[in-house]
Amino acid sequence: MPRMLKKRSIKSGQPPGTLIHVGEAKTTDVKITRMIYDETSFEQDEVKKISTCIPLVDGPGVTWIDMDGVHQAEILRELGECLRIHPLTLEDILNTDQRPKLEDFDDYLFVVLKMIQYDDVHDEMEIEQVSILLGVNFVVSFQERAGDVFDPIRERIETGKGRMRKLGADYLAYALIDAIVDHYFVVLEQIGEKIEFLEEELVTAPTPEILQTIHSLKRDMIFLRKSVWPLREVVGGLERRESPLIGESIAVYLRDVYDHTIQVIDTLETFRDMISGMLDIYLSSVSNRMNEVMKVLTIIATIFIPLTLIVGIYGMNFKYMPELELPWGYPVVWGIMLAIAAVMLIYFRRKKWL
Amino acid sequence: MPRMLKKRSIKSGQPPGTLIHVGEAKTTDVKITRMIYDETSFEQDEVKKISTCIPLVDGPGVTWIDMDGVHQAEILRELGECLRIHPLTLEDILNTDQRPKLEDFDDYLFVVLKMIQYDDVHDEMEIEQVSILLGVNFVVSFQERAGDVFDPIRERIETGKGRMRKLGADYLAYALIDAIVDHYFVVLEQIGEKIEFLEEELVTAPTPEILQTIHSLKRDMIFLRKSVWPLREVVGGLERRESPLIGESIAVYLRDVYDHTIQVIDTLETFRDMISGMLDIYLSSVSNRMNEVMKVLTIIATIFIPLTLIVGIYGMNFKYMPELELPWGYPVVWGIMLAIAAVMLIYFRRKKWL
Amino acid sequence: MPRMLKKRSIKSGQPPGTLIHVGEAKTTDVKITRMIYDETSFEQDEVKKISTCIPLVDGPGVTWIDMDGVHQAEILRELGECLRIHPLTLEDILNTDQRPKLEDFDDYLFVVLKMIQYDDVHDEMEIEQVSILLGVNFVVSFQERAGDVFDPIRERIETGKGRMRKLGADYLAYALIDAIVDHYFVVLEQIGEKIEFLEEELVTAPTPEILQTIHSLKRDMIFLRKSVWPLREVVGGLERRESPLIGESIAVYLRDVYDHTIQVIDTLETFRDMISGMLDIYLSSVSNRMNEVMKVLTIIATIFIPLTLIVGIYGMNFKYMPELELPWGYPVVWGIMLAIAAVMLIYFRRKKWL
Amino acid sequence: MPRMLKKRSIKSGQPPGTLIHVGEAKTTDVKITRMIYDETSFEQDEVKKISTCIPLVDGPGVTWIDMDGVHQAEILRELGECLRIHPLTLEDILNTDQRPKLEDFDDYLFVVLKMIQYDDVHDEMEIEQVSILLGVNFVVSFQERAGDVFDPIRERIETGKGRMRKLGADYLAYALIDAIVDHYFVVLEQIGEKIEFLEEELVTAPTPEILQTIHSLKRDMIFLRKSVWPLREVVGGLERRESPLIGESIAVYLRDVYDHTIQVIDTLETFRDMISGMLDIYLSSVSNRMNEVMKVLTIIATIFIPLTLIVGIYGMNFKYMPELELPWGYPVVWGIMLAIAAVMLIYFRRKKWL
Amino acid sequence: MPRMLKKRSIKSGQPPGTLIHVGEAKTTDVKITRMIYDETSFEQDEVKKISTCIPLVDGPGVTWIDMDGVHQAEILRELGECLRIHPLTLEDILNTDQRPKLEDFDDYLFVVLKMIQYDDVHDEMEIEQVSILLGVNFVVSFQERAGDVFDPIRERIETGKGRMRKLGADYLAYALIDAIVDHYFVVLEQIGEKIEFLEEELVTAPTPEILQTIHSLKRDMIFLRKSVWPLREVVGGLERRESPLIGESIAVYLRDVYDHTIQVIDTLETFRDMISGMLDIYLSSVSNRMNEVMKVLTIIATIFIPLTLIVGIYGMNFKYMPELELPWGYPVVWGIMLAIAAVMLIYFRRKKWL
Repeated sequence: MPRMLKKRSIKSGQPPGTLIHVGEAKTTDVKITRMIYDETSFEQDEVKKISTCIPLVDGPGVTWIDMDGVHQAEILRELGECLRIHPLTLEDILNTDQRPKLEDFDDYLFVVLKMIQYDDVHDEMEIEQVSILLGVNFVVSFQERAGDVFDPIRERIETGKGRMRKLGADYLAYALIDAIVDHYFVVLEQIGEKIEFLEEELVTAPTPEILQTIHSLKRDMIFLRKSVWPLREVVGGLERRESPLIGESIAVYLRDVYDHTIQVIDTLETFRDMISGMLDIYLSSVSNRMNEVMKVLTIIATIFIPLTLIVGIYGMNFKYMPELELPWGYPVVWGIMLAIAAVMLIYFRRKKWL
Repeated sequence: MPRMLKKRSIKSGQPPGTLIHVGEAKTTDVKITRMIYDETSFEQDEVKKISTCIPLVDGPGVTWIDMDGVHQAEILRELGECLRIHPLTLEDILNTDQRPKLEDFDDYLFVVLKMIQYDDVHDEMEIEQVSILLGVNFVVSFQERAGDVFDPIRERIETGKGRMRKLGADYLAYALIDAIVDHYFVVLEQIGEKIEFLEEELVTAPTPEILQTIHSLKRDMIFLRKSVWPLREVVGGLERRESPLIGESIAVYLRDVYDHTIQVIDTLETFRDMISGMLDIYLSSVSNRMNEVMKVLTIIATIFIPLTLIVGIYGMNFKYMPELELPWGYPVVWGIMLAIAAVMLIYFRRKKWL
Repeated sequence: MPRMLKKRSIKSGQPPGTLIHVGEAKTTDVKITRMIYDETSFEQDEVKKISTCIPLVDGPGVTWIDMDGVHQAEILRELGECLRIHPLTLEDILNTDQRPKLEDFDDYLFVVLKMIQYDDVHDEMEIEQVSILLGVNFVVSFQERAGDVFDPIRERIETGKGRMRKLGADYLAYALIDAIVDHYFVVLEQIGEKIEFLEEELVTAPTPEILQTIHSLKRDMIFLRKSVWPLREVVGGLERRESPLIGESIAVYLRDVYDHTIQVIDTLETFRDMISGMLDIYLSSVSNRMNEVMKVLTIIATIFIPLTLIVGIYGMNFKYMPELELPWGYPVVWGIMLAIAAVMLIYFRRKKWL
Repeated sequence: MPRMLKKRSIKSGQPPGTLIHVGEAKTTDVKITRMIYDETSFEQDEVKKISTCIPLVDGPGVTWIDMDGVHQAEILRELGECLRIHPLTLEDILNTDQRPKLEDFDDYLFVVLKMIQYDDVHDEMEIEQVSILLGVNFVVSFQERAGDVFDPIRERIETGKGRMRKLGADYLAYALIDAIVDHYFVVLEQIGEKIEFLEEELVTAPTPEILQTIHSLKRDMIFLRKSVWPLREVVGGLERRESPLIGESIAVYLRDVYDHTIQVIDTLETFRDMISGMLDIYLSSVSNRMNEVMKVLTIIATIFIPLTLIVGIYGMNFKYMPELELPWGYPVVWGIMLAIAAVMLIYFRRKKWL
Repeated sequence: MPRMLKKRSIKSGQPPGTLIHVGEAKTTDVKITRMIYDETSFEQDEVKKISTCIPLVDGPGVTWIDMDGVHQAEILRELGECLRIHPLTLEDILNTDQRPKLEDFDDYLFVVLKMIQYDDVHDEMEIEQVSILLGVNFVVSFQERAGDVFDPIRERIETGKGRMRKLGADYLAYALIDAIVDHYFVVLEQIGEKIEFLEEELVTAPTPEILQTIHSLKRDMIFLRKSVWPLREVVGGLERRESPLIGESIAVYLRDVYDHTIQVIDTLETFRDMISGMLDIYLSSVSNRMNEVMKVLTIIATIFIPLTLIVGIYGMNFKYMPELELPWGYPVVWGIMLAIAAVMLIYFRRKKWL
């Protein structure tokens, strides 16, 4: 999964605030959607050019600018100038290898999150960085590519159902964060099902392929943790509401998101424990099977090697071997061999090897 | 144990406060019991319809509403409206995959706990979410299904024994939490007995089945921890009594519950240490047995393979093999073979393999 | 060691303050000794009946009531009434499965400790719960059974040597705690000697029995830790002297006990590290031995199996086998066999297997 | 990698402030470069002698003195006298085995960092200590040897691009620290690529050489951690800006460096987890292969050893062996042998060994 | 290394302040050296009798009393009376099994440290307890035996070089502590060299003896940690300078010692990581070798056992074995055998066993 580690070194040596995109190179165009709404009105359009700043966040209601794709630094620079965003913030938006964080720039709050979706086709997690800027009456969200978990929010804004259109930009920012955190449960459920499937497999047929799957799960957990742990601090920081941009009315909602974050972390830790337990089961089952194999080998060898010696003895060509002449020599040898085999079997049974 | 992970993803994308039941689907009816009591009077009935709110918590005494089953969202919504419960609280009650927590909503305190019972029939733990609302003069408790650990409390209320009827709703809430925490000791005792049984088994007959049992115990511990650890914070938060809903007179009782919680956690950690110690014993006993098997194989092979070579030599059909003609050739070969075997045995005894 | 886990479940469902003894059932009588002393006088007697409270702690000096056995709840209840002890305290005294703790009840301080003695006869640790109540001019100590580590203190009170008789009840309480903590060093020393003995054994003769002993030591450490770790908090809490019952003059002594407690914990952790190091040595020595066994087997098999094939070839009965007719055929075969064996031995020596 | 542990013992017993170089002995000359700049002017020269102190940091603008090589204690002593540097600071600069740290000496801030570069030729990390002194209008940087990551900064000063020449000495110090931290990402990327390469290798061909590489990676991580962890505290301390030497305008930049530091630590921990996961995969693949080898051996031995006994039986030379005379004896033996082999193969297939 | 655990149990049951020596019994005499110095004068003599207290610390300058040997409790008691040392302090000095600590007794500061030296002759660490008392104008140091790391300090006092004679008793105390901490680097260097030597050995020839050495190193680390970790707190406590006995002028020096302590701890942790990495390498190399041994055995057995069966078949004595009569029977058998061996070898090569 090389995509997990991004080429950040190209930025090394650049002055702070240099806008270079860190992440997968893309050729698709950046798409900017704008929604302006208040309790009574709703408007949506696509922003084609950012040359004129005025129309950006000018309405009396709440403006949500959603940008799909951050690989065109120039567009971001223009947007940044219009909205008076600090160069370091722009740099962080472009750098898609950020750690989730919350920063307070007086004029706006800057939140970086990881949106995680499960790609059923390739059976792997997709981690995408989402940056959210919360101003007095606007929210700007930046995504790495098209496709997100915000459709229910868009629908709620359009239809005007629920509290969405009655409340301010802070509630919109909360809703976006909530949607991302809520989607973690979907991903966790898929991982949980995988774990349960593997646990059953382990008992019935522990193959080396299972080991491979366990390890790839473990790896997924490492990257999930890296995305989710810092979230606790981010949402906790929002909840403390030290910025005037966050109204008192949404405190209870932020506490709810915080609870969900804690629960995601809790489940992650539980999964980790379960996965490491599975590794233990796998290793001890391998150990057990080796033991069983060794026992079979030992039983066979211990019974037959002595008998082979006996028949070897009477295959010698010495002139004077009195036993060979005896008429009952052959049946007696058979008897001795059967006796030895019987004694061995009893010995193994008493040792609980059979 | 798939039941441990609940389908929470159906809630993803819903606006906050959406009432959807997360948990096992059930078809049984929800049952609501109401108890109104003060020092002198006591009344109990079953609430059939919540259409009229007034009779709910109207008495001068303490009202305890106990609801068995939270799978019918509509009933909960009505109840919520009557008692003016916040939608997020109702959502948490419906979502039976909550982490134990304490929330202060000014009008009421909201406590989520896990009630754990040991199902002797299926030999497994049953974890059930209990949500408790504490208001000025009422307590509402929500359980996932019928059957709980509250019978002694009901009895104490009915008979009027002890302090129960003399004290307020806060004491009732304390009593419910105390009953749940106290029952953990019963579950821990059963697990403790299992551990002791397994430890003896391990010494006498370490089979792969024991390994399976150890791992299922380990798994139980993971889920127990997940239920019990956050409790510390919950009960600790109650003890700090930052809400006016908790009177000073029950501080000493809450400290007592807090102590019990710490002790449950302590015992859990001790069990974890003991279980991981058992795994070590198991693995090293497997290793020891493998060693023993290998020794038997090696001793047998090392003694008999050289002898087989000797008898093979004198089974060759060369024309000119002077030894074969000698009259004492055969007995001499026997002598040599016995000597080799004896030397080998002495060698193994000196290596402490015998 | 089933005694380590006590039947606490019988208390589940009982109202708080219910006096039920949790611990080993006993039939012996409870024995209550009373000592009253000040700088000039000293008196000692056995309390037979608690019917009259007045004589209990009435002297101008310090009164020490020592109770051997807490299995008769009734006596405890009477004592509790006389000294106005809170029911929850009495419950804790009866419940001998407590975690060490310190509680401040304004009128008195309540300290729970674990007294650990090493039973040389059965070669096992004995953990006994000691509860200490410190009032203005009295100390009450509760033990599970007769026999303790307080004899030097009794002697010092009787003979009037040292500071004991000149100082108040707080000093007596300190002396009791100090005696218990000091005795931990005796137990640790015995465990330390066991560890050193085992370490030597491990090098000379690592048998599976040693493994058993290591694991039982490890188990002892788990229970010791459980008894000793909370002590740090207990003694630390006393040292902070937030209660007026503890005079300034004994601050320096409490700091001394605190230091000892830290040292006990330190030594425990060192032992834990040493024991887990021993487990590693054991397992790798088993692994080494297995390797050695395998080498012997492989050397024997690799040398003799090819030779056996050669002699088998010339044991075949084909009519036309020209080698068999040659007069020097037999010695040449011997030569070939010796050459093969020599090559093999050189090969093994170069591989450092010999 | 013996160079990681430096000979520090030569300093033992010396009074504090004794200037002895701890590190690799070098014979090259120390090179001191001076840059003086402000918004409009820029000057650069090489300092040959420190005999006259005045020209050192005398300009109205910012002076940056960069010293390559700290192995000549005398030069350092002179420089120290000129700039009034505390002897303990000089001692720390000479001792290249320092832990990263920040010290506030009122007149100046003293920062010790580790500059890490990846030497592609020898395929190993190079850790070099960089000490930075920040005064009111000057920065002095000390490096162990020529070659650093500061070239982009020098260029920015020369060309006057960006904010560099407009801001004070604190910004220069920040830029140096930022350059060092930024370069960590380059090193981490190289390690990350190594890890990914190894992970693929592990699946296709797990050789003992891979194990060696994993362990050397693990070792590199140990030393990286030692260099990077304390950085968090250092940069965090700068960010708190308790010294008047750090202006408010660079607070936001320091927060940015702090974020990067956290991210470096995060990535380090992720790598550690991945490396230890690789070790697990390697060990279980070795275990699996052993198991496979054992199975082959056991199958071969179990099939052929009994057959060898049978042919041995009919190779005996007894006079009276009726089977030998039978005309269909030979084919029947063949039949029996094939039957035994078939039974064995079916048995192994059912055991899933084949 | 039994000396690491000292007989402390003899003190159990004694009242606090009882002076009993805990440690190795010694018969040598205790030697007390006294140095009195100020900026201009210096005087040194040996104290023979402590009967008269006056000359002890009476000078206007600084007095350093150094006592080699603490096994004669009586001398210590007299000294304690003269200097008014608290009985608990004296007890701690006698008890050479102390944990490093700092205690503030208003009149004096009491510091316990562990002086560690490396005994090259027996190739083992020697841990010796050093107690330091710092008063207004005197320092008293107690050592377990003759021989220490203070000679450079004595020399500096005698010759009057450096700051030593200009500063007060606090500087002397600092110098003693600094000398002890500085010497840790010497010990760490020796351990570091051992580790590097072992790492090379591990790659070239991993014998069981190396395992033994690794484990003894690990043990040394356990005891080193126990001596060094608490030091952090001790030196940190001194640095906070809450006692008037420590002047402001030595704050910067104490911060330096604190840094060194942190660095010692850092290096210890690095060594621990490296040692546990070495254990992993050792165990996996044992595992690899076992695998290799098994492969050799399996290859030999798998090639030769089937061939042995074939030659056994034609060694049977059946009357009617048509193959035996055929003139080309013998060479055909040879051909078959060579073909089987070749097929096997190709099979093993494809499995990468050869």
